[in-house]
Amino acid sequence: MGFWFEETASSGHRLQWKVIRELYAGKSQYQQIQIVETEEFGVAMVLDEIMQTTTGDEFIYHEMLALVPLLSHPHPRRVLIVGGGDGGLAREVLKVPKVERVVMVEIDPMVIEVAKRFLPGHTQSLDDPRLTILCQDGAAYVKNMAHAQEKFDVILVDSTDPEGEGPGQFLYTPAFHEDVMNALNPLGVYVQHTGAPFYNPEVLRDVSRDVARLFPRRQVYWCTIPTYPGGIFTFTAGSLGPDLSEPLQSCSYPTRYYSPAIHQAAFALPPFLEELIDNAQ
Amino acid sequence: MGFWFEETASSGHRLQWKVIRELYAGKSQYQQIQIVETEEFGVAMVLDEIMQTTTGDEFIYHEMLALVPLLSHPHPRRVLIVGGGDGGLAREVLKVPKVERVVMVEIDPMVIEVAKRFLPGHTQSLDDPRLTILCQDGAAYVKNMAHAQEKFDVILVDSTDPEGEGPGQFLYTPAFHEDVMNALNPLGVYVQHTGAPFYNPEVLRDVSRDVARLFPRRQVYWCTIPTYPGGIFTFTAGSLGPDLSEPLQSCSYPTRYYSPAIHQAAFALPPFLEELIDNAQ
Repeated sequence: MGFWFEETASSGHRLQWKVIRELYAGKSQYQQIQIVETEEFGVAMVLDEIMQTTTGDEFIYHEMLALVPLLSHPHPRRVLIVGGGDGGLAREVLKVPKVERVVMVEIDPMVIEVAKRFLPGHTQSLDDPRLTILCQDGAAYVKNMAHAQEKFDVILVDSTDPEGEGPGQFLYTPAFHEDVMNALNPLGVYVQHTGAPFYNPEVLRDVSRDVARLFPRRQVYWCTIPTYPGGIFTFTAGSLGPDLSEPLQSCSYPTRYYSPAIHQAAFALPPFLEELIDNAQ
Repeated sequence: MGFWFEETASSGHRLQWKVIRELYAGKSQYQQIQIVETEEFGVAMVLDEIMQTTTGDEFIYHEMLALVPLLSHPHPRRVLIVGGGDGGLAREVLKVPKVERVVMVEIDPMVIEVAKRFLPGHTQSLDDPRLTILCQDGAAYVKNMAHAQEKFDVILVDSTDPEGEGPGQFLYTPAFHEDVMNALNPLGVYVQHTGAPFYNPEVLRDVSRDVARLFPRRQVYWCTIPTYPGGIFTFTAGSLGPDLSEPLQSCSYPTRYYSPAIHQAAFALPPFLEELIDNAQ
């Protein structure tokens, strides 16, 4: 019974997950979409053969991507999510009481539809009246918002990895980061995942360099997520003001990975990572 | 060319590492020993089909197991290593200037011999005059030391996992932890790895409970190591005095994972882990 789902982490490393059953397999305009029930981490969404999110450990990624910037910003009223179609990030963002309006721009409507069917824990907040979902190209949206009146306090990029042919590629270029900066309100902050530097050091190196050139403040923090191979999993932030390593507000509800101590600890980088970032300046 | 080495992380998860060549395969009285050259993480020692240490990421484990207790102890003069046959831990311990004497008790002499041949970076300090290597049962040695005159300031347990049939099993029992406590000088500290709680929560849960019952102070800290699956990888410490989360001395030489900030950050536990530990009391 069941079979093994295999994921290529790098040319020298593969992971296999025992799949109890495949719940869905389809192909959108942008990517292959699968939903599988794994033995170890519950239900997982797989895009182009890469495990994106599982019910077993998604809390780590979503709490750390949402709460670190939101709780260190003095008034995170307007939040933009680029990507995030599985809904997990919007759920975490909408838990923060100060958030008044969230725009989620997901290029692939099929990701949202499939998540609603198979990942109800992720998508539980997608009907929140504070949330607007737009199915269009997030990069083009951000470019337009650079000239808009109403900008954002926090922009979170929750996309597929820049490797491969997926729709996330442009979200890792300096041109996009410049648009992001221009779409922020004064004191605005942006965060994006920059992968596992043991396997893809160039992602962290290049994004952190580009962000440091553009933003007054560039910060890097990390966590570790069992279903993302490579141990340390990084986030890169650009800030027009706030120090993201200092939570200004406490969290008024229970969390499973995030805590004020974890928030601050996440910014302690091992010397080999400091070196990777510094050498890219 | 080459083949894939496969490791079972749990019943639902397997890892595969591309092996360029096998350098050694043998069987000692205690376990199967292999040395393979991997594409991703350099040369690796494999015991009973579990990857133990690789030249690519061993610095994380060895720095965190050695430096956190040694740099938070006021005078770590006498250090005992239980296990540690690959030599990497002794190398890190002997870098600390205050260390005057190290006893390493490795049950399997073949591990040391094979490491000397294939892991010269690990074994570079095994001829240090401050080091005594004993090839005998570490648990029996610790039991005897409980009645000895000269005890230890720091005891580090660097063994195989408690799962399976390997020689590490007894090193995860309350009886052993009591012997460890009795083999410590006043103000002594002990540290042991307690695995990846996503896969083996019972190891952290049981050891941390046992240590809390025995020692005046029980502390848990963590890091993440790419070749050990499951993200968070934990260490459990028992202390007769020092707060291990506070470094008393700085490190006088370069390190790659350890820093004073990482030292303190490593003690910030995600709420789901706090809960696992608290529920075991």
